[in-house]
Amino acid sequence: MSLTEWEEGREFPPKGTFIEVVEVGSRDGFQIERDFIPTDRKIEIINGLIDSGVRYLEVTSFVSPRAVPQLADAAEVMAGIDRSKGAYLTTLVPNLKGAERAAASRADAIVIVCSASETHNAKNVNRSVAGSLAGFGEIIRFAHDAGMDVVGGIGTSFGCPFEGDIDPQAVLDLAKAYADLGARQVTLGDTTGMATPPTVRRVVRLIRQELPDLGIRLHFHNTRGIGLANVLVGLAEGVTLFDSSVAGLGGCPFAAGATGNICTEDLVYLLHESGYETGIDIEKLVKVARRTQQVIGRELSGQVMKSGQRLQLYDAGAVSTAAG
Amino acid sequence: MSLTEWEEGREFPPKGTFIEVVEVGSRDGFQIERDFIPTDRKIEIINGLIDSGVRYLEVTSFVSPRAVPQLADAAEVMAGIDRSKGAYLTTLVPNLKGAERAAASRADAIVIVCSASETHNAKNVNRSVAGSLAGFGEIIRFAHDAGMDVVGGIGTSFGCPFEGDIDPQAVLDLAKAYADLGARQVTLGDTTGMATPPTVRRVVRLIRQELPDLGIRLHFHNTRGIGLANVLVGLAEGVTLFDSSVAGLGGCPFAAGATGNICTEDLVYLLHESGYETGIDIEKLVKVARRTQQVIGRELSGQVMKSGQRLQLYDAGAVSTAAG
Repeated sequence: MSLTEWEEGREFPPKGTFIEVVEVGSRDGFQIERDFIPTDRKIEIINGLIDSGVRYLEVTSFVSPRAVPQLADAAEVMAGIDRSKGAYLTTLVPNLKGAERAAASRADAIVIVCSASETHNAKNVNRSVAGSLAGFGEIIRFAHDAGMDVVGGIGTSFGCPFEGDIDPQAVLDLAKAYADLGARQVTLGDTTGMATPPTVRRVVRLIRQELPDLGIRLHFHNTRGIGLANVLVGLAEGVTLFDSSVAGLGGCPFAAGATGNICTEDLVYLLHESGYETGIDIEKLVKVARRTQQVIGRELSGQVMKSGQRLQLYDAGAVSTAAG
Repeated sequence: MSLTEWEEGREFPPKGTFIEVVEVGSRDGFQIERDFIPTDRKIEIINGLIDSGVRYLEVTSFVSPRAVPQLADAAEVMAGIDRSKGAYLTTLVPNLKGAERAAASRADAIVIVCSASETHNAKNVNRSVAGSLAGFGEIIRFAHDAGMDVVGGIGTSFGCPFEGDIDPQAVLDLAKAYADLGARQVTLGDTTGMATPPTVRRVVRLIRQELPDLGIRLHFHNTRGIGLANVLVGLAEGVTLFDSSVAGLGGCPFAAGATGNICTEDLVYLLHESGYETGIDIEKLVKVARRTQQVIGRELSGQVMKSGQRLQLYDAGAVSTAAG
């Protein structure tokens, strides 16, 4: 399918539409950092994001501290978050024990994850897709009884580093399984940055057509540089929730030096400049991004935090230029 | 104007359309490098690009060696280029003397540049816009007499770091002046990365409407991370020529650490994945990008050269993953 086929069925949200930016940096970003980030620095960054207007965050994972030592402080982080502004806090959980810890931390929602690719799921959680789904019923029932929403995470939705292309039907089947189990939202994970305009369009269109009441979050990685182009495609298909990571935190386990999730402040810049609203103060957000880079201690991939805002003007007497 | 308004008048080129990727790295990229890149390294990179299938290159500038010492070897570089594959070689020239040097180097075309912003033009070339245009007649006549095409460069087409927003009418006026002087193509320079989906759409639509016979190249910088999203918008408006820089060479004189031109191999990846043809072998191109990074001696911003191709598959037994 070529871009031409955007002609049919596109439905960009109208100007002024609120687009929900879902911050996932403290979960998907922090987890790949080798050096432990002090708990109070994590809390400072998350509360900075909330202060800048971010209202939907995937805060952490309640996974085994042995598996991911960086997130061993998940409960302390959750306890330190400013809830006075109505932030909606989700946490990733791999099993019932994780869901219990999430409930104890007063999470608003849990995210459970299964890959559309059998090989990736086996590698990631040592289960078949059917095996993962079989375990989810109990977790979801527990979550609902505890008053938590459930988001169904679908890894490798746009391609798998072991299997290659993923049949959109496999993504739809998983989305349908989640919906049948009571999830009202799925997040389509571009786990290793394989999403492209045609794959995004195909998968989103299929799910929206077959499961019109299911909420869709798009979770893009910028591994191959086209994450924000994919956001435009998602918008064109009517999606209004996008996952991103402050300062471009994160990486790719398959490619040293490759970038991770799309960058929150660059996404917000694109959305605002394109006529959408996010409720986020981008100046404050950029300060949090710069602070995040300082805490991490190496250059991160976000661009707007380096360039400044579009209409930040310069004194013509003070700067030298170059043609072009 | 919001993205919604893509609904009206979009005309993506059909699947399989040839999109011309114009390599500008050896001009717009090299010129900001402080350390002199040996002439034979420059030639090696340019010939590598041609070998990978690139056919339209902005090779160098015939500017004063005192002003830009990095490009003092412009004539030697031109002399070393492989012309056996039919590459179309353009060079930037600031004045008649530059055009004479370009002709002596057997350039196929010259690029002349004027900014849509009076303040930027004054700062860049110490002339008013009218003053620049007054000098162009003689240069263009010389070029045509010498058998060279002329491309009209329009700097700050999507915003100026001194003046802010640029009236699309000012860009149209310059494009019209170039057309009246005999140029058949303009390149719309996003000099400091201020282009956004609505600014791109407005300017391109106006020029295509008023000057339907004038060719349009879009020259985006990725300063704020949305360069490839802007490419999608340009495609949606029917543009089929895009400037880019191998490995993401280049930078921004206003922001240390900000990226430069959009990256050639990331652009080619986006185009191929979206159903377009470029005539470029991306595997060969990525090798040239990695070699370019090695020659420059620091990490450049290109992503595909770090991540590898989308369908480069991994052995599930050999790699550890992380959820999400």
